[in-house]
Parts: sequence; C-alpha cells; structure tokens
Amino acid sequence: MTRCPSDPDPRTPDVTATTSPEQAIPAYQERIEGVLDRALDPAGAPDARLIEAMRYATLSGGKRLRPLLVYATGEALGAPQDALDAAAAAVEMIHVYSLIHDDLPAMDDDDLRRGRPTCHRAYDEATAILAGDALQAQAFVTLSSGTAALPAGRAPVMLQELARAAGLQGMAGGQAIDLGACGGRLDLPGLEGMHRLKTGALIRASVRLGGLAGGADDALLTRLTDYAECIGLAFQIRDDILDVEGDPETLGKACGADARLDKSTFPALMGLEASRERAVALVDQALEALQPLDAEADLLRHLARYIVDRIH
Amino acid sequence: MTRCPSDPDPRTPDVTATTSPEQAIPAYQERIEGVLDRALDPAGAPDARLIEAMRYATLSGGKRLRPLLVYATGEALGAPQDALDAAAAAVEMIHVYSLIHDDLPAMDDDDLRRGRPTCHRAYDEATAILAGDALQAQAFVTLSSGTAALPAGRAPVMLQELARAAGLQGMAGGQAIDLGACGGRLDLPGLEGMHRLKTGALIRASVRLGGLAGGADDALLTRLTDYAECIGLAFQIRDDILDVEGDPETLGKACGADARLDKSTFPALMGLEASRERAVALVDQALEALQPLDAEADLLRHLARYIVDRIH
Repeated sequence: MTRCPSDPDPRTPDVTATTSPEQAIPAYQERIEGVLDRALDPAGAPDARLIEAMRYATLSGGKRLRPLLVYATGEALGAPQDALDAAAAAVEMIHVYSLIHDDLPAMDDDDLRRGRPTCHRAYDEATAILAGDALQAQAFVTLSSGTAALPAGRAPVMLQELARAAGLQGMAGGQAIDLGACGGRLDLPGLEGMHRLKTGALIRASVRLGGLAGGADDALLTRLTDYAECIGLAFQIRDDILDVEGDPETLGKACGADARLDKSTFPALMGLEASRERAVALVDQALEALQPLDAEADLLRHLARYIVDRIH
Repeated sequence: MTRCPSDPDPRTPDVTATTSPEQAIPAYQERIEGVLDRALDPAGAPDARLIEAMRYATLSGGKRLRPLLVYATGEALGAPQDALDAAAAAVEMIHVYSLIHDDLPAMDDDDLRRGRPTCHRAYDEATAILAGDALQAQAFVTLSSGTAALPAGRAPVMLQELARAAGLQGMAGGQAIDLGACGGRLDLPGLEGMHRLKTGALIRASVRLGGLAGGADDALLTRLTDYAECIGLAFQIRDDILDVEGDPETLGKACGADARLDKSTFPALMGLEASRERAVALVDQALEALQPLDAEADLLRHLARYIVDRIH
C-alpha cells in the first residue's frame, strides 16, 4: 500500500507543545530523522550511487539545530505540522549540501566530518559535487510540496526566504568571503559580516520559516528575526571559543585549527573573555526579543541558552 | 532612482505575438540577456569575485533554447510577461550552473566553453563550485519573485516543477547516470533514459513553466509535455549527429569527441541514417502534439524544426 506523504507516520514521534524542552529536543531530532529518511527515499531514484551519497551525508545525526529552530518557532505559533516538517527538512538539506561542498578538495579539503569520512572520501569528488547539487534542489522540492497547502501567497514567500538564505546574499556569499579571507585579513566588522551570511543567514531563515508557516505578523516576524540574528552570531562566537578551549574528544575534531590556519576569529580579535561576554550578551538580547511570547516559546529560549552553554 | 523590477525596462525589446518566429528569436534572446543581467546585479553583492564569476558564466550568449521555450509557450497562452521573464531566467540559471559544474576537473575537466575559458579556468575551482551553487539558489529566488503574483497555488507548483527537473529525478540524476556510464555501457533504452533526465528534464520544465504561467489546463499541459519530451530527445540525437559530421568551426568545438571517449551515442547504437530519421519522426510527433493550437504556437513549431535543422 502506498502511503500518502501527509499520513501520520507510525515511526514519527508526536511532539506537542506540552512537552518540556529537555524532552522536546530528542523527540524533534528523531522526528526530523524520519522526515529526512522519507524525503530521500532510495526507491525510485534513477541512480543508486547518487541517492546513497545524499543519504550518507544527510542521515548521519548531528545536532539538527536548524530543524529544531523551525519546529520550536512553528510550535510557538501553532503552525501546521506538515509545513514545519517540510521546512525543517529543507533547511537541513541546504545545510548538509553546504557541508559536502565546503569539505571538497578545492575548498577546505577535509577528510572527516562528524567522525566519518567526508562525502567525497566515502564516494568520489564528482559524486559529492552532484550529491550537494541534488540536495539543494531537493530542499526546494520538499519545501514547495509541504507549503503548497498554506494560505495563498505564503508558499512563494517561504521559498524565496530559503533561496535568498542559500545563495549569493546568504550562505554562498559568506563562503566566498571566507575563501577570499584565507590568511586572516578580516577585522571584527568583516568577521561578523561574513558569519552573518555564511552561517547566520540559514539560522535566520530557519526561524523565519517557522514563523511564516505559523502566520506571524510583521511585528512578531521582526522580533523572531532579532532572536535569530543574535543566536546565529552567538553560535559562531561559541564555535570559535570551543576551537580554543574545547575538548577534542567531545568535539569529535582537533582543536586549535583556526589558530594554525591563521583565521580571523572572535577570540583572536577581541580576546577569550570578551568573546564569552559578547556571546552571553547576544543570548540575553535574543531572549529579550521573545518577551511578548509566553511559555509557548520556552523551547526557543532553551535553544538560545544551549548555544552558549554547549560543549560541542 | 531605484527601478521597481516590474517596471518595463527601456533596454528590453517588446516581443509581441504578431512578430514572425524569425524576428521573435533574436528579440527574445536580447530580452533574456537583459533579464539575466538585472537578476545578477553586481551592486549590493557581498562578494565581488563570486558575482563576477556568476555573470561571466551566464552572460556569454548561447542559444538560450530553454528561455526561448518558456517565452514561446507562454506567448501561445497569453501568460503575464513578468512570470515568463522570471521562469526564463530561472531555467537558464539552472542550465548555466549545470555547465559550470559539469566542466569541473572532477567531472568532464573541460577548459573551454563557448570558445572561452570555463569558469574554473577563468577564476578557480572553489569559485566555480560556489558560482554554480549560488546560481541554483538564484534560480529559485528569481522564479519565486516572478510568480508570486500568479493565481493562488500556481507559484509552488512552478517552483516544484523546476526543483524536480534540476534534482535527483532530473538533471542531477541524469548526470550521475552519465558519470557511471563512462566507457559506453548504455544500451538504447538506457541512453534515452539518461538523456530524458540529463537534458530532457529541464527542456520539459521550460515548456511546462511557460504553460503553467499561462494557466494551461491538464489536457493542454499533457500535449505541451509531449511536445517538450519529443524535442528534448530530438535535440540530443541532433547533438550526437553533429559530433560525428558537424563542422568544428561552426560548432566552436572539436568533433568526434564522443567516439574517442567511447561514449554511447545514437549514431553509435543505431547508425547515422536511422538517427536522422528518428530525430525527424520525433519532431513530427512534437508538431502533432501542438495540433489544437493555432498560429499562436508558430514559434514553438519553428523551434521544433530548428532543433533538427541546426548546424551548431
């Protein structure tokens, strides 16, 4: 029997707004794993190796921060679950495609990702390029199918939101600045600008897609955007701090890479203590932006605090 | 003064349905050049090198067959010009991104494209990968902004159409089959299947996007799809024939490459004369599919005939 994509899936845990943040996170992580697994169904794929490489790179766990932000925002606004599943899967596909391409020999030339061989190491370079390309397309397939049932006009706005975050004015633009800045030529505003695009744009889009799916008005969307921009930058500062003082075993990768590569980082430009204070201040600002929302936004608050407290 | 994207542009020629096909083709080619130029505006781009590479690869002429198919189909149905401009630019961006990535050292490793250095030769490999990635995203930015004003529900359908044509079940899937088939292991059905995805899917999407923008009903969309599938395959057969007997000077590239690489081709699998007959029969079938349409579809008819008569 063919299952209609909108049927509830028996494997998908039902995460309701009454769950505590501590319970909601693993439940949503399990949920997105199922959604991604079904969105990348090997049955019917015209090329077995390509879909295998896409699944290899995508279904490998990870924090799933971007899907969590989609779900947490959508949950706060009572958005329809179908649209959230689609948006959560779409932002993660964009994220994973960017990791595959960033790891390529012509870019960062990395052999390991999340403790496993990178996609071009596990397969080959041509397959990794194609797997990234196809994942980007699949993100738009998935988002457009999940948002078609939303009120008129909202689907193209959401698709545009994701496309802008992925492209020249977002992630790809930020990666280009980062490539051009090898050797640490960025000052603090330059570093912030680069991160605002390279990682910030997709974190921002994750929150805004949850908000748009939930029908947020302009005022609320502005607050959600403030929240997202603050935690996006705090996330990156925390990343830089972990590269200096993190535990390589917990991180799953060597530390000190930024210093060895002479990369611009927040600790290098403003010192470790000031970086820590900046991250905490950004999270406070993010929480302030959520002020009009009540308990329904507790998961968003929890995720903001997690970002500065995380150890990997 | 900032120009609104929907304002008529003084540089854009107005192509009306009363123009003959012979006049319409160069006029639409000029029109799409202007639309692409404005969609890839270097002003405000966060990284100068990335947008330059995107413009270098995109604004280099070419037949613009896919945009012509969007315009010709939309013209036959009286579609709004804004949506056609957006769809025409979007399909060309997907096409150009695929050329950039196909030319990469890990793929076909080509140094020349349309008589100029390929993108990774003119810039570098990392920039070429990113330029392709950003062009794919920009295709969805462009399509979603141009289709937002169409009747409710049509925009997500059009975005899904393009995303499917680009991804695993389309162009990227076809390229993966082609990569796996190096050394000519495809039989005739396998070769047709590969081309149906690698080049056929985007040609099909170009026609269908024009049809959807024009509000074609299911019956007409089926006929337009038949037309597109026939000319897509005929286009590829003609490509294979030109590689055997074309004039290298007119083609702008060396001939006989397929035979040297021992690639599966239509002439190799069914002979030159039978390939020619097959291409002509496919064009007849394409014209038959247009039978319910009157003079308004003359440009589509003209394009179908051009595909088997072209010498480059």
